[in-house]
Amino acid sequence: MHLGLVGLGKMGGNMRTRLRNAGHTVTGFDRNPEVSDAASLEELVAALPSPKVVWVMVPAGGPTDDTVVALNGLLGEGDLVVDGGNSRWTEDLRHAELLAAKGIGFVDCGVSGGVWGLENGYALMAGGSAADIAKVQPAFDALKPAGEYGWVHAGKVGAGHFSKMVHNGIEYAIMQSYAEGWELLETVDLVENVTEVFRSWKEGTVIRSWLLDLLVAALDEKPGLEGIRGYADDSGEGRWTVEAGIEHAVATPAITAALYARFVSRQDDSPAMKAIAAMRNQFGGHALHTEPPAGGDAASA
Amino acid sequence: MHLGLVGLGKMGGNMRTRLRNAGHTVTGFDRNPEVSDAASLEELVAALPSPKVVWVMVPAGGPTDDTVVALNGLLGEGDLVVDGGNSRWTEDLRHAELLAAKGIGFVDCGVSGGVWGLENGYALMAGGSAADIAKVQPAFDALKPAGEYGWVHAGKVGAGHFSKMVHNGIEYAIMQSYAEGWELLETVDLVENVTEVFRSWKEGTVIRSWLLDLLVAALDEKPGLEGIRGYADDSGEGRWTVEAGIEHAVATPAITAALYARFVSRQDDSPAMKAIAAMRNQFGGHALHTEPPAGGDAASA
Amino acid sequence: MHLGLVGLGKMGGNMRTRLRNAGHTVTGFDRNPEVSDAASLEELVAALPSPKVVWVMVPAGGPTDDTVVALNGLLGEGDLVVDGGNSRWTEDLRHAELLAAKGIGFVDCGVSGGVWGLENGYALMAGGSAADIAKVQPAFDALKPAGEYGWVHAGKVGAGHFSKMVHNGIEYAIMQSYAEGWELLETVDLVENVTEVFRSWKEGTVIRSWLLDLLVAALDEKPGLEGIRGYADDSGEGRWTVEAGIEHAVATPAITAALYARFVSRQDDSPAMKAIAAMRNQFGGHALHTEPPAGGDAASA
Amino acid sequence: MHLGLVGLGKMGGNMRTRLRNAGHTVTGFDRNPEVSDAASLEELVAALPSPKVVWVMVPAGGPTDDTVVALNGLLGEGDLVVDGGNSRWTEDLRHAELLAAKGIGFVDCGVSGGVWGLENGYALMAGGSAADIAKVQPAFDALKPAGEYGWVHAGKVGAGHFSKMVHNGIEYAIMQSYAEGWELLETVDLVENVTEVFRSWKEGTVIRSWLLDLLVAALDEKPGLEGIRGYADDSGEGRWTVEAGIEHAVATPAITAALYARFVSRQDDSPAMKAIAAMRNQFGGHALHTEPPAGGDAASA
Repeated sequence: MHLGLVGLGKMGGNMRTRLRNAGHTVTGFDRNPEVSDAASLEELVAALPSPKVVWVMVPAGGPTDDTVVALNGLLGEGDLVVDGGNSRWTEDLRHAELLAAKGIGFVDCGVSGGVWGLENGYALMAGGSAADIAKVQPAFDALKPAGEYGWVHAGKVGAGHFSKMVHNGIEYAIMQSYAEGWELLETVDLVENVTEVFRSWKEGTVIRSWLLDLLVAALDEKPGLEGIRGYADDSGEGRWTVEAGIEHAVATPAITAALYARFVSRQDDSPAMKAIAAMRNQFGGHALHTEPPAGGDAASA
Repeated sequence: MHLGLVGLGKMGGNMRTRLRNAGHTVTGFDRNPEVSDAASLEELVAALPSPKVVWVMVPAGGPTDDTVVALNGLLGEGDLVVDGGNSRWTEDLRHAELLAAKGIGFVDCGVSGGVWGLENGYALMAGGSAADIAKVQPAFDALKPAGEYGWVHAGKVGAGHFSKMVHNGIEYAIMQSYAEGWELLETVDLVENVTEVFRSWKEGTVIRSWLLDLLVAALDEKPGLEGIRGYADDSGEGRWTVEAGIEHAVATPAITAALYARFVSRQDDSPAMKAIAAMRNQFGGHALHTEPPAGGDAASA
Repeated sequence: MHLGLVGLGKMGGNMRTRLRNAGHTVTGFDRNPEVSDAASLEELVAALPSPKVVWVMVPAGGPTDDTVVALNGLLGEGDLVVDGGNSRWTEDLRHAELLAAKGIGFVDCGVSGGVWGLENGYALMAGGSAADIAKVQPAFDALKPAGEYGWVHAGKVGAGHFSKMVHNGIEYAIMQSYAEGWELLETVDLVENVTEVFRSWKEGTVIRSWLLDLLVAALDEKPGLEGIRGYADDSGEGRWTVEAGIEHAVATPAITAALYARFVSRQDDSPAMKAIAAMRNQFGGHALHTEPPAGGDAASA
Repeated sequence: MHLGLVGLGKMGGNMRTRLRNAGHTVTGFDRNPEVSDAASLEELVAALPSPKVVWVMVPAGGPTDDTVVALNGLLGEGDLVVDGGNSRWTEDLRHAELLAAKGIGFVDCGVSGGVWGLENGYALMAGGSAADIAKVQPAFDALKPAGEYGWVHAGKVGAGHFSKMVHNGIEYAIMQSYAEGWELLETVDLVENVTEVFRSWKEGTVIRSWLLDLLVAALDEKPGLEGIRGYADDSGEGRWTVEAGIEHAVATPAITAALYARFVSRQDDSPAMKAIAAMRNQFGGHALHTEPPAGGDAASA
C-alpha cells in the first residue's frame, strides 16, 4: 500500500524503513527536512492515493493534537488517520469524534518494540472499527513481528492506546521487580557474583523474560552498573495506568510502587522526609541532618 | 555418578527421573515406600560409594532439619550433603557448621522449574566451596537445562538459597504486575478481548516472558478465569525476601505489595477495614455494613 | 449577616443551625420542602440583601455544577458564591471563571468536622481573593471552632478545596495506620486486651489524636468491632489527592496504600488474585481454589 | 518504694527525676560515674530492700542482654527485673525464662513520651503476671501521665514491648501521612501558605493530633523546613512491626511505606534505580544519567 507517515524520529524513521523493506510505498513528513520526503503535510496528503491513510507518529499531547487537527482540514470522506504515538486513550475519543464529523476514520495503535523494532518487528495494539482497521492492515502486517503474535485488534477506538498504556504500566512494575532483587543481591556479602546469578536465570527459571535479558546485557556493558545514576524518567503511561486504576477502583500497588520509585529517584532531597526528620526532632530530640551546601556533597554532610 | 536422593515428591521424583535419564545412578529414599528405593536412610547411605553425596529434597524447616541431623550421624569425613529444598539461607549456615564438625561438606542449591523441570531442566543456584560443588557437579550438569544458562555457583554457603529466594521474590512481583494489568483491562469496557491482548504481547513487546506465556495458557483453559477463586498462598520465600530487605535497609515495595496482596486474598474479611469503617462511622455518621451471617453470602449483605 | 444556603442535608442543616445560633440570618433552600426556607433558588436569591452571598452545600459534581450555573443566572455584579461542598479544586477554577464574566465573586471553602461540627465548630479552609473572603467572613467566624485555630485563608481560588482534599488524603492514611496496628494486635495471642492498649494511648503517647479517641469510642460500642463488615467507601478526595500527587510527581505511598485498601475491601473476589492463582497453577501445579457458588460461603470453599 | 534504675541517659535520667519528684527512692547506676548513684551494679543491688526491683533502661540488644544476665547473677527468689528499654518482644520471652529459673520475676514495659515525659508523664505498656506488676506498680503510677490514660497492663510477658512496637509502627505511618500531605501542598502553587494550613488543622479537623502540633512547631522554628535534610533514621521498632505483620500474614502497607521511605532517604543513590535506568537504556535508547563524581553535586549532574 501507499501510506503517509508523519514524524520520522527514532520510532517513525525505523518504521518507514521496515514498511519499505516489506514493499510498501511510504511518503514521510518531518519538521526536519533532512529526513522528510514531503515538504509539507499538504504535499504529503496530495501524494497519497484515495482512500488516503496517514499514520501519525509524533509526541503525544500538543504535537499529535495539532497534526490531527491539520489532517482534519486536509483529508476527506473515507480517508483514515492512524495515531501510532503514545496518546492517552481519552484523546483518541476526542480525535475520532472530530474526524468522524467529516467522514474520516480513526484508528489508535499502541506500538511497542523500541530500538529493536526495525529488526524484530513492532508489537501493535489497535483500536477502531473493523472497516477502518482493514484499510491499514497491510501496514500492520509489515510492521508486526514475523511470528504469530504481536498484533491485536483490542477493541473500540481507544482500546489500542489503553492496552499499550497497561502494557507500559506492567513494564514499569516488572522492571521494578528485577531492580529490587538486584539491589538486594548487590547489598549482601553472601552472594559473590550477582551478574552471574542474573545470567543463570535466563533459562529454566520462572522469571525468564526479555527484560531480564536486557538487564544482563546492561550488566555486561557496565559491570555493577558503575557510573550510571539511579535516575529514571517516566513517560506518562505509567501515570495514566495508575490513574485509570483509580478511576475504576482497581488497586495497582506494584505498578504504583514502580512509578513512585521513579518520582523519588529524581529528587535531590525529599520534602516529605524533611517533615519526618523535623517531627522526630520535636518529640525525641533526634538530631537533624543539615542540607548540603549548594554544590556540596550530600554524602559527607 | 551414584547419588543418594532423600524426598521423592513432586520435585524429587522428577529429578530422580531426569538424573537417571542422564545415565546417573540414583538411590532414592522417601517415607512413602511405594516410591522409595531404599528402606531407610541408613540403607540409602550404605548403598553409596565414598565420597558419599546425598541430595536432600524435603520440605523446608523441620523435615530438612531432621534429615540433615540424621545424615550428620550417618556420613563421615569427605562426604557431602546437598540441600536442594526451599530452606531459608540462615538454616544453611547452621547446617554447614554442624556438618563441618565431622568433616562433612555442605552445598545449598535453590532449584527452580516446577512441573516443567523434568522436561526442560531445572535452574540451579548453588552456594558452597568450589571443592564441595565439584563433588556434585555431574548431577548439576544433568539437572540443569540443555542451553548455556540455568546454572550458577552464586557464592558462599547460603548464597544458593539466598539467590533462589530473591528469584521467588521477583517472581511474586512479576506475577502481581501482570495480575494488576489483567484486572484493569478486564474492568474497562473499552477493551473487548483481553485474552487476545495478552496473547499479542507474547512477541515483540517489552514485557514478553515465560510467566506471560503461562497466563495466556491459563486464560485459554479457563476463559475469563471463570471459576477460579482469587486466593493465593505464599510459600515462605516471598516473606523471607522482604525480611532480608528490611534487615539490609533495602526497600522492596513491589515485592512487598505482591506479598501483601496474597495475605489479603486469604481473608474472608479484613479486621483493618473494620477499624476503618468504625472510625468513619464515628466522625461522619457513615453507615456501617454488617457482617454476613455464618454460611451466608457476603455479596448480598 | 444575611446568607443564602443551598443544600440542607446532614452538613448544611447543621451549619444553618450554627449560623443562626451565632445571630446570623440564613435563608436555606433544599429540594426537600420540609427543611427548606425558600420555595426555589429564585426565591432564595430574591430574599437576600446586596451584595448577595450564597453558600452552596450540595454534593460535588453535577449537583454543585448545576447550582453554580443556576446562580450565575440569578446573581450579578458584586455578589458572591461560596462552594462549601467537596468539589475538586479543578472545578473551582472553572466556576470562578464562569462567574467572573458577570462580575460575581467566588470562594471555595473546604469544610471539616462531620457530625461533630454543630457543637464544636467546623474547620474551614478557604480559597479566593481577600476582598471576596471579607464578604463572607462573618459566616466563617460563626462556623469555625471557638479556639484560635480551625480557619485559614489558604490561597487563591481552588486552594481551599485543595487543602481540604489533602486533609482528607492524610485522614485516609492516618486511619489506615491505626487500622493496621489494630489488626496486628488483634491477631497475636500475646496481647490480651487490645482495646485497653488503644485506650492507654490516649495520653502521653506520640500517637494520641482525635481519630484514636474515635476508634476507642467505637471499640467501646462494639467490643472487638464484632458485627461490622470490613468494607470502606471512598468519597473522591482520597483519589484526587493521589492524582494530584501523580500530576506533580509527588509520591504518596501511605495515602495510596490507604486508598487501595478501601478498593480491595469492596471486592467480593479479586480478579488480580485469580490471575496470580492461575499462574501458580500453571508453573507449580499449585491447587486452584474454586469460587463459592452464588449465595454460598467463601469461607468453606 | 525504693527502686534500682540501670541506665541514666536521656530517658533514664529524666525518669529518675520524675520518680524522685513523686517521693520514691531511686538508686541509679550508669557507666558514666558523673550521673551514677552506685559505683557498680553490685552496689546498686546491695542497696535495695527485698523484694528488690531493678528497672533496666539501657539500649536494646547487647546492653540489655548483658544487664539482664548480670542481674540474674545478683538477684534472687522473689526479686523483679523490669525492662523499660526498646527490646524486641522475642527477647522478653528469653529473659523471663532465664530469670524464672532462679525465681526472679520479669516485667517488660514499653515507654513512650520522649523528651516530654519528664513533665507530662510517660505512657507505659506493661507485660507480665499480675503479681509481678504489683511489685512495681508504685513506680508505674509515678511515671505515668496524671490523667486517666497512659498506662496499661497489656498481657503476658512480651505484650508490653509488642504493644509499644506497634505504637511505634503506627507512629511511623502517621508521620508519613502528614509528610506526604506537606510535600504535596508545598509543591503546588495554588496553596500560598502551607504552614498556616497546617496550623488551622489543629482544631475542628478529623486529623488533629499531637504529631500535627509538633509539625506546626517545627514549621514555626524553621519556616519551610529550610536547612533540614530529608534524612530519617529508624530505630528497629518499625522494622519489627512489619516483620511481625509478615509472621502473622497481616498486611501493613502504610507502615511499610513509611519504613521504606526512611530506607530510601538515607541512600545517596539508589542501586535499584540504576537497574531501571539501565533497562530503559537497553530497550528504548533512553539516555543514562551519570553518577556525580565523588565530592561533586548530584543536582548538576
